[in-house]
Amino acid sequence: MALSIRLIPQHEFARVRGSAAARRTRLSLVADMCRANALAAVKRAGSGHLGSSFSAMDIVVLLYYEKLNTLSVGLNSPDRDIYFSSKGHDVPGLYAVLHSLGVLSSEKLMMLRRFGGLDGHPDVRVPGIEANSGSLGMGISKGRGIAWAKRKLGRGGDVFVMIGDGELQEGQNYEALTNGPNHRIENLVVIVDHNKVQTDRVVREISDLGDLERKFEAFGWRVARCDGHDFGALDRSIDELRNHRGPAILIADTIKGRGVSFMEHPVALQRGGGFYPWHAGAPDDESFERAHGELIERVQRLLSEAGMAPLTLEEVPPETAPKAKREDLEGEQLSAATVNRSATDEYVSKTYGEALVEMGRRCPELVVLDADLSADCKIRGFEAEFPDRFIENGIAEQDMVSMAGGLARHGLLPVVNSFASFLAARANEQIYNNATEGSKIIYACHYAGVIPAGPGKSHQSIRDISLFGALPNVEVIQPANAEETRMAVEYAVLEARDNVMLRLVIGPSPRRIDLPAEYRLQRGKGALLARGSDAIAFAYGPVMLHETLVAAEMLAREGFGLTVVNMPWLNRFDPEWLRETVEPFSTIIVVEDHSPAGGLGDALLSVLMSHSLLATRRLHKMGVEGFPACGTPSQALRYHRLDGESLAERVRAAKSAEDSAFTTVC
Amino acid sequence: MALSIRLIPQHEFARVRGSAAARRTRLSLVADMCRANALAAVKRAGSGHLGSSFSAMDIVVLLYYEKLNTLSVGLNSPDRDIYFSSKGHDVPGLYAVLHSLGVLSSEKLMMLRRFGGLDGHPDVRVPGIEANSGSLGMGISKGRGIAWAKRKLGRGGDVFVMIGDGELQEGQNYEALTNGPNHRIENLVVIVDHNKVQTDRVVREISDLGDLERKFEAFGWRVARCDGHDFGALDRSIDELRNHRGPAILIADTIKGRGVSFMEHPVALQRGGGFYPWHAGAPDDESFERAHGELIERVQRLLSEAGMAPLTLEEVPPETAPKAKREDLEGEQLSAATVNRSATDEYVSKTYGEALVEMGRRCPELVVLDADLSADCKIRGFEAEFPDRFIENGIAEQDMVSMAGGLARHGLLPVVNSFASFLAARANEQIYNNATEGSKIIYACHYAGVIPAGPGKSHQSIRDISLFGALPNVEVIQPANAEETRMAVEYAVLEARDNVMLRLVIGPSPRRIDLPAEYRLQRGKGALLARGSDAIAFAYGPVMLHETLVAAEMLAREGFGLTVVNMPWLNRFDPEWLRETVEPFSTIIVVEDHSPAGGLGDALLSVLMSHSLLATRRLHKMGVEGFPACGTPSQALRYHRLDGESLAERVRAAKSAEDSAFTTVC
Repeated sequence: MALSIRLIPQHEFARVRGSAAARRTRLSLVADMCRANALAAVKRAGSGHLGSSFSAMDIVVLLYYEKLNTLSVGLNSPDRDIYFSSKGHDVPGLYAVLHSLGVLSSEKLMMLRRFGGLDGHPDVRVPGIEANSGSLGMGISKGRGIAWAKRKLGRGGDVFVMIGDGELQEGQNYEALTNGPNHRIENLVVIVDHNKVQTDRVVREISDLGDLERKFEAFGWRVARCDGHDFGALDRSIDELRNHRGPAILIADTIKGRGVSFMEHPVALQRGGGFYPWHAGAPDDESFERAHGELIERVQRLLSEAGMAPLTLEEVPPETAPKAKREDLEGEQLSAATVNRSATDEYVSKTYGEALVEMGRRCPELVVLDADLSADCKIRGFEAEFPDRFIENGIAEQDMVSMAGGLARHGLLPVVNSFASFLAARANEQIYNNATEGSKIIYACHYAGVIPAGPGKSHQSIRDISLFGALPNVEVIQPANAEETRMAVEYAVLEARDNVMLRLVIGPSPRRIDLPAEYRLQRGKGALLARGSDAIAFAYGPVMLHETLVAAEMLAREGFGLTVVNMPWLNRFDPEWLRETVEPFSTIIVVEDHSPAGGLGDALLSVLMSHSLLATRRLHKMGVEGFPACGTPSQALRYHRLDGESLAERVRAAKSAEDSAFTTVC
Repeated sequence: MALSIRLIPQHEFARVRGSAAARRTRLSLVADMCRANALAAVKRAGSGHLGSSFSAMDIVVLLYYEKLNTLSVGLNSPDRDIYFSSKGHDVPGLYAVLHSLGVLSSEKLMMLRRFGGLDGHPDVRVPGIEANSGSLGMGISKGRGIAWAKRKLGRGGDVFVMIGDGELQEGQNYEALTNGPNHRIENLVVIVDHNKVQTDRVVREISDLGDLERKFEAFGWRVARCDGHDFGALDRSIDELRNHRGPAILIADTIKGRGVSFMEHPVALQRGGGFYPWHAGAPDDESFERAHGELIERVQRLLSEAGMAPLTLEEVPPETAPKAKREDLEGEQLSAATVNRSATDEYVSKTYGEALVEMGRRCPELVVLDADLSADCKIRGFEAEFPDRFIENGIAEQDMVSMAGGLARHGLLPVVNSFASFLAARANEQIYNNATEGSKIIYACHYAGVIPAGPGKSHQSIRDISLFGALPNVEVIQPANAEETRMAVEYAVLEARDNVMLRLVIGPSPRRIDLPAEYRLQRGKGALLARGSDAIAFAYGPVMLHETLVAAEMLAREGFGLTVVNMPWLNRFDPEWLRETVEPFSTIIVVEDHSPAGGLGDALLSVLMSHSLLATRRLHKMGVEGFPACGTPSQALRYHRLDGESLAERVRAAKSAEDSAFTTVC
């Protein structure tokens, strides 16, 4: 039987809001009702961040229901109050609040992480969203900019920025904290959702923040601290800080997972054996029903105590086409708990983790660095076996990378881990600095490419190849399957003389990419996966290789032969191999899990040109144009015309346009 | 008469060191003698940072002469103590100390900022240099990495990292400070050269750091503070911190320019009318002689008081070929004082500053942001005329960029300024985040390209185009001369709908690039500067256009016709214009003031391919291969084979290789 998902409709919020119940009762009801709806949205989405949606919920409800003028003056009013969350992953909670106030429809709320719906991290195209966030540490700076603009333009409205506690490990916060008093900002209140758990571990264990009040005061901010679930205390603290003539910050002591007994820290952490299981990812059916039931039951009890009629929930109709596929939903999961569920049971990243442990056994100089993504980067195994060679830097990519620079010059071989978006971009100058020292470092860029597409453009990485591209001594390699991942790790650790950037997809492979039986990784050479005589396509990584193979299969049925090459080397080429490989073809396709700028296609164009291999050939780049779309993998690939079917069409079109072009020219 | 430069030879340092004079006398003598030699080196170089070389000198001398085992155990010993400066621009002082101890020869010291000599910022290929630095804020992280490696590998030696006070505005420091106690680092001492002046203004005015002791203590560090020119106090403080079992930091109160009366803060600042004139750049002849004379006089007096024979200095022979050209030296100058001296009196950046003021008058929404490079970025004029629309963020590029994001969404048009290396790389993820919001921001990337080459690879920017390349909504424009700079600023402010990255050279133009009389900037179109029928070369910016025109002139004398196109649009092309422009040519040259990866060449290859314009053509990229060379402009351009003469050779070679290739193929 399909799971039933029920939503609390907007009129029920209106009823509670307009009731004669005590203020605290009304706010508590709304907060729990929003928790239930956020839970439903995440369950439907198949992924999302409940732990911090729940810890921040009471604050967000108080702000929107009592403190902000935003809805009364209008979402487009220049004089509106501004609220946004810098951490951003708590946005399911915010969506639920915006839904409760009529800003978002129930249909929209049920399109969390779907194309045309609500992005997995905040995006300003969604009504009520004031800032794009999701990559951490930018919020206080951005909020200060908004506050500055309001003052300069004589506009009304205050600015409230929510930040996470783990997020405070990002150095940018301290730039922003330094400039708050220096810019004499008065219309900004920062609220720390201090729930003490980041990703899946306690902040204190990952990278202790010490005495936060003392720190903020040392930076010249007015600080208040209160229970982040006590509406009265929050009310007083927020008013006090809002009236303070200077930058102000509230440390709100909250409980991660607040509102659902078994999701609450510290109980949940104990049950998870030291790991908090509800940071990201949707709960399984049973947990969902227990959690939802608990929330609704408490709401009904409170309503009854207040002498009000019980809630009526609305059944959410099943998701309509395009129905998300199984791997779509699983590809969304970014948490340790989901490691064993996959479309193919093949996770490139899992093998990466295993290979790293193996290398750790062989190479005593290997050290592994993490920026609070150890579960997603699959380096928990290394951590467990070599705790004295595992370095946790917290959410501080720049520090991690420069620290690796120091390690590398003094006898160690550091393997630096984070998501590609964060590592390649946030620590770009530090990576360059290390590269100029000529030491060897391995940069493992996880979650490379456009899939999973649910988290949205803060997380999808389509620029990382280009960000490493102009570094002369970094080899960029993306393996296609588990086997090649193992080879790539071995190559990087044992053979490579230069730095290596390993580009790794994070989800399950949509299919197992079969490499030739005798295949071994050879510098600058790829491997033929399918043979056909009409065109040749280069692709890399399991996601795009799968789609390209689907295209080849479709084309084959129409008598169009597409040769498919797995090209794990994204910026190193063996010219002889390349010459032989492209020799029979006039049409070259490059399918990029990346922007068309600065990816494999540009590198190939360049090397083909310098080896006089382009004169009779056309190269067509098919990459992620624009910003990456949010949605299920199918939706995003289809939108970018990178799914198998679209690719088949595009290859055919390219070939025929080319044929006519050649006719015209000759 | 040529200026006489005299150096104190190494044996004089040995004499002082081995003398019976009191310890304090010996150290004072060595420090002033090193100051004199650093001054001589900077004068010879034509550029360099004296202010902080002098403020840090007493500390560096104490460390190397009394505290570090580095020279006794050997520069390659794994058990050596490590010292490096995170700010890096104080390296002339360190070179002088290393010279005094016999690590660097006098000849080498006189090759500051010359090819094959001593880089303008620290580089590990120079003996005694332990870390590449110069881009700020990485040192504590890197030092912590070294300290961690030493502990892990059971190696001896402590780590000392010098940082600047202005440098503490970089957020990465706080990531590193957070992780110091968390990683239980014990063998690291950080020393703040707290000279209270950054670049050319007082730290407190740029971005006040507040109570530093309180901040460091809040981050869990053991803090000591002392007079950074009192050897006794330094000695005690350093010993105390070194013995502390945990991360430790010394705030050394110093005087910028210490040792030369008129270079010392606050006197120098008062004389400079609020601007400190000795941060960067060599003193003029008169100032040099006064400063040198003052230092030598004090040394002789102290020697005489100690009953020692006077110093004998050695005349430095004049610089041998390749003699630096006038514009070479002037191109090195990065300070406000040098604005009016140039090879052509044409500064792209000066016009940028003027155009910005003009735009400020026309557009009330224009706001200008700075990260402590207002003089070099030529935005002092804007600051003076529109103080309420000028935002100083201090050395905090990430905060500046995200703040601009907030401003841009709320009614203002921010123009963000820094050096290209720092802005494009350090704030890359913040730039991406802003771009995803669809607001409009202008990023002015100053000091783009390989020239000036004296500061070294931390400052030379050869990756910035590639770092913006995969952003779909940023147009990258590099103007060729003052006139085009004005047009580009106007376009960016008044016409552009997307974000604009303005890529600007910082030195004087080696020649005035003459644009066609009727020329106006048109999106995607370039301008022909020279006509010839054998090949066509695309270049951008005054530096490479000059070299390309030199090449064209040389080739013309041999009967080879090279068409030269100024192509200010680095990632936007008008296909029709491009078709017409390349039509007559089979040989296309792209001269890059950038790495060959991700620059104009790759973008052109891509657009030519997609418009079927490559079949009968060869495109040759000539860019900055490897890391940018340090030296005079001539030396660096010659090394990279990007000077006019080399380009002429390469164009000829390309054309003839191509002719034979075409013969072979056809």
